[in-house]
Amino acid sequence: MSVDYDVIVIGGGPAGYVAAIRCAQLGLKTACIDNGLDANGKASLGGTCLNVGCIPSKALLQSSEMFEQANHEFASHGIKLASVELDLKTMMARKQQVVAELTGGIAALLKANKVDSITGSGRLLENKKVQVSEKTEKNIFTAEHIIIASGSSSVELAAAPLTENLIVDSTGALEFDSVPKKLGIVGAGVIGLELGSVWRRLGSEVMVIEAQDRFLPIADQQLARDALRAYKKQGLDIRLNARLLATEIKSIKQCKQVELRYQDEKGEHSAVFDKLIIAVGRKPNSDNVFDSEAELILDERSFIHVNDQCETSLPGVYAIGDVVRGPMLAHKGSEEGMMVAELIAGQYAAINYDLIPSVIYTHPEIAWVGKTEQQLKAAGENFNTGVFPFVASGRAKAQGDTRGMVKILAHRDTDRILGVHIMGGHASELIAQAVIAMQLGASAEDLALTVFAHPSLSETVHEAALAVDNRAIHIMQKR
Amino acid sequence: MSVDYDVIVIGGGPAGYVAAIRCAQLGLKTACIDNGLDANGKASLGGTCLNVGCIPSKALLQSSEMFEQANHEFASHGIKLASVELDLKTMMARKQQVVAELTGGIAALLKANKVDSITGSGRLLENKKVQVSEKTEKNIFTAEHIIIASGSSSVELAAAPLTENLIVDSTGALEFDSVPKKLGIVGAGVIGLELGSVWRRLGSEVMVIEAQDRFLPIADQQLARDALRAYKKQGLDIRLNARLLATEIKSIKQCKQVELRYQDEKGEHSAVFDKLIIAVGRKPNSDNVFDSEAELILDERSFIHVNDQCETSLPGVYAIGDVVRGPMLAHKGSEEGMMVAELIAGQYAAINYDLIPSVIYTHPEIAWVGKTEQQLKAAGENFNTGVFPFVASGRAKAQGDTRGMVKILAHRDTDRILGVHIMGGHASELIAQAVIAMQLGASAEDLALTVFAHPSLSETVHEAALAVDNRAIHIMQKR
Repeated sequence: MSVDYDVIVIGGGPAGYVAAIRCAQLGLKTACIDNGLDANGKASLGGTCLNVGCIPSKALLQSSEMFEQANHEFASHGIKLASVELDLKTMMARKQQVVAELTGGIAALLKANKVDSITGSGRLLENKKVQVSEKTEKNIFTAEHIIIASGSSSVELAAAPLTENLIVDSTGALEFDSVPKKLGIVGAGVIGLELGSVWRRLGSEVMVIEAQDRFLPIADQQLARDALRAYKKQGLDIRLNARLLATEIKSIKQCKQVELRYQDEKGEHSAVFDKLIIAVGRKPNSDNVFDSEAELILDERSFIHVNDQCETSLPGVYAIGDVVRGPMLAHKGSEEGMMVAELIAGQYAAINYDLIPSVIYTHPEIAWVGKTEQQLKAAGENFNTGVFPFVASGRAKAQGDTRGMVKILAHRDTDRILGVHIMGGHASELIAQAVIAMQLGASAEDLALTVFAHPSLSETVHEAALAVDNRAIHIMQKR
Repeated sequence: MSVDYDVIVIGGGPAGYVAAIRCAQLGLKTACIDNGLDANGKASLGGTCLNVGCIPSKALLQSSEMFEQANHEFASHGIKLASVELDLKTMMARKQQVVAELTGGIAALLKANKVDSITGSGRLLENKKVQVSEKTEKNIFTAEHIIIASGSSSVELAAAPLTENLIVDSTGALEFDSVPKKLGIVGAGVIGLELGSVWRRLGSEVMVIEAQDRFLPIADQQLARDALRAYKKQGLDIRLNARLLATEIKSIKQCKQVELRYQDEKGEHSAVFDKLIIAVGRKPNSDNVFDSEAELILDERSFIHVNDQCETSLPGVYAIGDVVRGPMLAHKGSEEGMMVAELIAGQYAAINYDLIPSVIYTHPEIAWVGKTEQQLKAAGENFNTGVFPFVASGRAKAQGDTRGMVKILAHRDTDRILGVHIMGGHASELIAQAVIAMQLGASAEDLALTVFAHPSLSETVHEAALAVDNRAIHIMQKR
């Protein structure tokens, strides 16, 4: 049977486009189908991450952090600013420019790699056929191998239906045309915290309600406690154990606002916001990506069922990224994309799912890899802990950002590093040191024996490793 | 024979105080002799690094970089500043505060570890006696082991004798009370470039003359070329192959200025500066630290001769840090301090001298570890090169700092990483990933198989590792 392509990838996000590029590098004739459009209705590759996720949020986090520094830090450095004024339109235009450059870059890379970029919604039919719908047109392509990388979408709440520019999801929250005076956020997860940070820095009064009673349950709880304190000190009014009951749009003084009712242990409350962000999680885009005749098995949470090699229940059909089990993280999807491309090309490939780093891009940043103290205790593991605070780092002091700590957990008998948890300046970059060390099976002593440049924030990783053996230099150790 | 101490450390810089703390942790009765004084004549531990080197320069690099951003970057982020005014007095006071906190911290750590901190100049006599001179007073102490960590000093030039506040060394260059309009620097090494960057950002017109014809000969020349271009673009007027002939203090319009005469391939030139910084290197402080009766052997460049374990020619006497061979870097000294303490305590200890990272804290930062391309070629090694530019990094774009690259050199047959060279944002932190990987004997493929958080600058390390095998994702690879 002659087919149109060796590989068709459905979805052009960080999982899909990486898979497509890697397939092309390996000599496979590849197409990548994507339905993403920019504000002008033009095709825009890169999926949620590049268009309405990681990238625009990081652009705004950067700009808003600079605004925060201008307002609160520059004076202490001897930089006098007569006035600091926000030009939100320019800030948003810069964000959009960053997005446009990167999405355009992906299109150029696909082209240069000779991947056919097909605009439309891809849908798996039976017998490795893929239907592409664009507006009223439908085309069918065939391929030897199909990779589904259809991504995920924000979970919506019946009690708070999205309302144009008033009750919004994370996408809408990146596009406010003015700074909301009062901003409500439902969900104190990574996305809620990052978006809350952006708008608080730009001037919003931010309240976050979170149904769970523990803050950041996925993170090491020592760091989570410190982080909660830091966020509250910054002015994020985070309320745990607070369950959304209902929302109502009200016109107050000719302005539309959102009244939110919620319940906590003290009873029922209400609060009025200019904008409300719903950030309660994401769900896999598995409902429209295959026809019922293509007998793809989903798991109980609607993820496409796959094994460790991302093979679905259908031979030759793979699924990767947010639409399958595992953390909904761009880098996890990209790694799966590379792995699947190499498997299709007949190479050996695997992913170490235990060593996928997580990052929260607030300030201080939080990043971790491996097990938390809670997980190790629950598993009955014997471990030693090394903690070193940034306040004892010369570089952190010189930079004027001394919040947070590095915490290393190592096996008590083998000294092998089991988890690393960082809160503080550049945690998102420092965590790579831990991933590399753990990927190579390092002991805490291995890190202790490594020479770190002085002065650098990275020295805190070194000192935390020394602290595992109770011999950090720049904090007092028990004798 | 009864002795006063198990260990006496001469010098309280990053080599000496770390040695003293580690000795104390290991249960050794330890004294640390230091003659550092602050501007008020009070004892100030930490040596050159904390008092007049790494730390104050990094504080000023941070503050001046923020000043630069306020002047040139904030507008594009949508932050309007009516005026940006330098308050040099506050900037300098902040720097001094950072220094005071850190040097005070060292004093507190020595005390908490029960190290006797002795103020004065230590001098090794025969038979493991150490004389401490403070003003007119002289005391003699004895110890089982002596560690000399007397550091280094700026090299002075006969053609440009230091002149109070006019021709200065790096120490003086950290203490100008106004921004020199025209600043001359002799020496385009790490210190000259860092100081030149600080004052250029604050408004000086900076000219750097360098006698060598190659720029940054210690660095990988591909990065050095790019760096030279970046510095020149910033406005640093760097002149290579330019040899200082003479200087003369002139009173011009009742203001004292420095006239500098230098020679390059085109002939003799002269230039007039408000201040001139001499930054032509450092020399070991080996001339007053031992008495002739203590028969310590120096090498031909006046460094105290030591073996790989930092043992001198005298049994029981060690020397560490800038006063011995190897790079004059604080972290190299600190590692030697820890090693020697552990050797004295009877433990096994060693340093991997091949893996000491170097950093230049300009903007972009430059950092490297292992061999340069030039060194590998000279040694006839077969190697593959993987290069990835920051301009293709989403995080770099979001942060608005896309200069530079990561370059990984790996053995052609074994794929083992031989050198990593980074120019770009946070190179000083990213380099630790390379040191850890190389310390653990990693191949480029090991890094390629590691999962890096998205978006992060660290992904450039990942992509450079992939590029070694011609399979980076976000740049076009040869097919």
